[in-house]
Amino acid sequence: MNGFACKANFSASDFFFAGLAKPQPINNTLGSIVTLASVFQVPGLNTLGVSLNRIDFAPGGLNPPHEHPRATEILFVLYGELLAHFITTANVLVSVTLKQGDIFTFPKGLVHFETNIGKGPAASISGFNSQNPGREDIPTSLFAATPPVPDSVLSKTFQISYQEVDKIKSKIAGNP
Amino acid sequence: MNGFACKANFSASDFFFAGLAKPQPINNTLGSIVTLASVFQVPGLNTLGVSLNRIDFAPGGLNPPHEHPRATEILFVLYGELLAHFITTANVLVSVTLKQGDIFTFPKGLVHFETNIGKGPAASISGFNSQNPGREDIPTSLFAATPPVPDSVLSKTFQISYQEVDKIKSKIAGNP
Amino acid sequence: MNGFACKANFSASDFFFAGLAKPQPINNTLGSIVTLASVFQVPGLNTLGVSLNRIDFAPGGLNPPHEHPRATEILFVLYGELLAHFITTANVLVSVTLKQGDIFTFPKGLVHFETNIGKGPAASISGFNSQNPGREDIPTSLFAATPPVPDSVLSKTFQISYQEVDKIKSKIAGNP
Amino acid sequence: MNGFACKANFSASDFFFAGLAKPQPINNTLGSIVTLASVFQVPGLNTLGVSLNRIDFAPGGLNPPHEHPRATEILFVLYGELLAHFITTANVLVSVTLKQGDIFTFPKGLVHFETNIGKGPAASISGFNSQNPGREDIPTSLFAATPPVPDSVLSKTFQISYQEVDKIKSKIAGNP
Amino acid sequence: MNGFACKANFSASDFFFAGLAKPQPINNTLGSIVTLASVFQVPGLNTLGVSLNRIDFAPGGLNPPHEHPRATEILFVLYGELLAHFITTANVLVSVTLKQGDIFTFPKGLVHFETNIGKGPAASISGFNSQNPGREDIPTSLFAATPPVPDSVLSKTFQISYQEVDKIKSKIAGNP
Amino acid sequence: MNGFACKANFSASDFFFAGLAKPQPINNTLGSIVTLASVFQVPGLNTLGVSLNRIDFAPGGLNPPHEHPRATEILFVLYGELLAHFITTANVLVSVTLKQGDIFTFPKGLVHFETNIGKGPAASISGFNSQNPGREDIPTSLFAATPPVPDSVLSKTFQISYQEVDKIKSKIAGNP
Repeated sequence: MNGFACKANFSASDFFFAGLAKPQPINNTLGSIVTLASVFQVPGLNTLGVSLNRIDFAPGGLNPPHEHPRATEILFVLYGELLAHFITTANVLVSVTLKQGDIFTFPKGLVHFETNIGKGPAASISGFNSQNPGREDIPTSLFAATPPVPDSVLSKTFQISYQEVDKIKSKIAGNP
Repeated sequence: MNGFACKANFSASDFFFAGLAKPQPINNTLGSIVTLASVFQVPGLNTLGVSLNRIDFAPGGLNPPHEHPRATEILFVLYGELLAHFITTANVLVSVTLKQGDIFTFPKGLVHFETNIGKGPAASISGFNSQNPGREDIPTSLFAATPPVPDSVLSKTFQISYQEVDKIKSKIAGNP
Repeated sequence: MNGFACKANFSASDFFFAGLAKPQPINNTLGSIVTLASVFQVPGLNTLGVSLNRIDFAPGGLNPPHEHPRATEILFVLYGELLAHFITTANVLVSVTLKQGDIFTFPKGLVHFETNIGKGPAASISGFNSQNPGREDIPTSLFAATPPVPDSVLSKTFQISYQEVDKIKSKIAGNP
Repeated sequence: MNGFACKANFSASDFFFAGLAKPQPINNTLGSIVTLASVFQVPGLNTLGVSLNRIDFAPGGLNPPHEHPRATEILFVLYGELLAHFITTANVLVSVTLKQGDIFTFPKGLVHFETNIGKGPAASISGFNSQNPGREDIPTSLFAATPPVPDSVLSKTFQISYQEVDKIKSKIAGNP
Repeated sequence: MNGFACKANFSASDFFFAGLAKPQPINNTLGSIVTLASVFQVPGLNTLGVSLNRIDFAPGGLNPPHEHPRATEILFVLYGELLAHFITTANVLVSVTLKQGDIFTFPKGLVHFETNIGKGPAASISGFNSQNPGREDIPTSLFAATPPVPDSVLSKTFQISYQEVDKIKSKIAGNP
Repeated sequence: MNGFACKANFSASDFFFAGLAKPQPINNTLGSIVTLASVFQVPGLNTLGVSLNRIDFAPGGLNPPHEHPRATEILFVLYGELLAHFITTANVLVSVTLKQGDIFTFPKGLVHFETNIGKGPAASISGFNSQNPGREDIPTSLFAATPPVPDSVLSKTFQISYQEVDKIKSKIAGNP
């Protein structure tokens, strides 16, 4: 296809988005929220292979372990202080402390997460080399999927009892 | 590079591998073991973008939740009966029962897992569209990384206590 | 496009296929038959860049010289014994004997072929790094095309007489 | 190569960079300065296909017409107010006014430029889908190359006299 | 998509084009004209990633500074004598004199231009690694866009007065 | 790698080649000769994904059935008259007559061939979307490989006797 089957008429607004400008309200247990600027929000990104997102963190907030199946992420701290990590395929945890303006890289498909370790709120902007990076969230994909992942799988995976599995499922389903 | 900086002299053995022919011994808690035929085992795969692996399952064995950062997987059942699943980025669990000779697809970067639901051992061969797909294993990356993922992150992610985190860590570290 | 213009609703069956499970009947002169599991049989492979096929061989059967324009192939022997070959662009013949469970690689676009050298039937499963590898079969493309390749071309190419060309054409057309 | 010939040992600092955190001094005629965070500054970006940069603008400052041969750019306004433009291959000028937090896209290889139209300084962060996007700056490539572009070419291109060409050359060489 | 959503029925004419066979009339100030053989003229090129064009030059004619956002170009001189140049991202001017049958390369996205330095007409055929390379023409994109690039931008970019900007605009608009 | 591990110092000559300018002497049975301008002859093509070649044809000359594993070809007739063909994966022969200046496309990996049907010599220039397209020549790969393709394979493939196989082998080995 290569940039061919696109809109017959376009305007500047197809390449523009204002939705990352302001912090979004954070009303969940984890204390973080992600706002996307991918091809769904910015139609002009079609075929161009790039997108952004914004993450807002409450004090102590966590963007929980997740990975992007189709993109590497490079994160820039707008304000606040973050502790950021990714885990390699050799199970090495790679960690940095990030202050305002620092950047860090999360290679394609590797599990990563960030915690707001500052006193106030924090926010970041990330660039992705896909117009639709996707996000596989580890806790909700495993403990809040529809239909649910069988207890037997989760019990064996994490070496916990069925009751412990069900307790996590009910907490995560209740507080995504 | 495009197939350029390769070996000056090659032989047929660079494109051959016998290491997937036999079941491998399974001596772990989960009851499964993966054998790779990627560019590290088959040097002729360099620049060719394809590889295979073999998975052996004990009765009841689980290949635990994991994803491949750089490849889609298409699995063929050599023998036995498997229950296979992947989870989409919308947290939909997609499941099938597979008998000998059936195939199933695990899209790039999505978390997936398989359980041997037959009475005897089972085995599969998978094709990947990368010479080095990589594997991010969810339980060991989160609970047995070096250095370890902080208890605070795992406690918040799975909404369990620090003691519960430490219990899982010690079990998984002891029985990878 | 990048994984975008896909089905609005999908099910597990889009990623599943049972058609490689059993040997297919072999009723041709060459003694081999190929069964595909590409995007046409497995619609969920769309945009994922991977596929499988199965080849069944009668004793002495030949999968004749051919190449895949859009994929490298990596072949695994299900049972039986094969003599497999590919020819490089420098006209080097690369050959191996393969037993059950052995694998061999056919680099993208290179002519290759396999013979069943065992006493009984043989079968293989191959992985491809394309959802639609294509197959250019050398004998039928040259001697059984529609419309036919001119006798003058084949006579000059193989340095044989027009009668010899016509004899091959009639045999291959009659016994594809 | 596909992520193969990388460093044998890496550390978190290979994926980190602090050089985009602060405004850079602007001591040129145009009133803007670009700071890179590409694979040269962030070695961990090797093979990952993504990078960032920061642009600082003095009041009235211009990031002059240029294009990136190897990447699409998606720009986020850190602070200030910008008037941003790109020109399509059909010579259509696409323009937007951007306030803090707004984003805009510059498709791969298209000439683009931004002006600070606010009262104070402005700054932006851009994501690129290449680890080394490159930058072809129109005024300096044409009027300050080494060796120089012939006067005859520039005279004919812009339909100006040789003296006018030389005047521009001397101004741009003196005030890059 | 990968070569999937193509025409249901095709014919040889989809892969054929006669439009590069003859010199095109040159009735512009610059003394050159480009004729395309891309996917728009040759529909069979869809998904194949290659195209050609022909450039005719009057004596002294210039193909003015431009770049192709989606392709590298490799030019072959059909007849005549050309002086060809490209400018690197480090502002190095790379130049060669080309006689009949010589070839020269213009890397993807780099500004380049050619002058007919022979006594008679000249012509070239170029190969591109895109079915739709695109062309960003520097003088017309900057001085004849619709709507026009602001005088303030061009004045600052080339360090010339508004009157000089307007004079170039009117000349280029009148003699594209 | 992505355009990274290139020469530290380059010159214009790395992007230039004069070797396609003149017809090459044709001293073989088939009556055609190919001259390459790929990355081996033009080192500046490294990472750029494009190349050219020239084919010279004696009257009646044939460029025999072959395919390029890594590129689509688009051919331009310099002079003379050619009958050109390719064969699809469905064994459809697609044919055109080409006069001076006409172009035709040979999709990646498909077998194709051209005959000079004019009274005098003919020549063509082709563009490829690879810096190293490769060429798998059907008659020499099958009948003049080292070591040789087994007679049993060729006998079965073309349904001819071992003597006929050996006759072709000796002719092609003697007159490549």
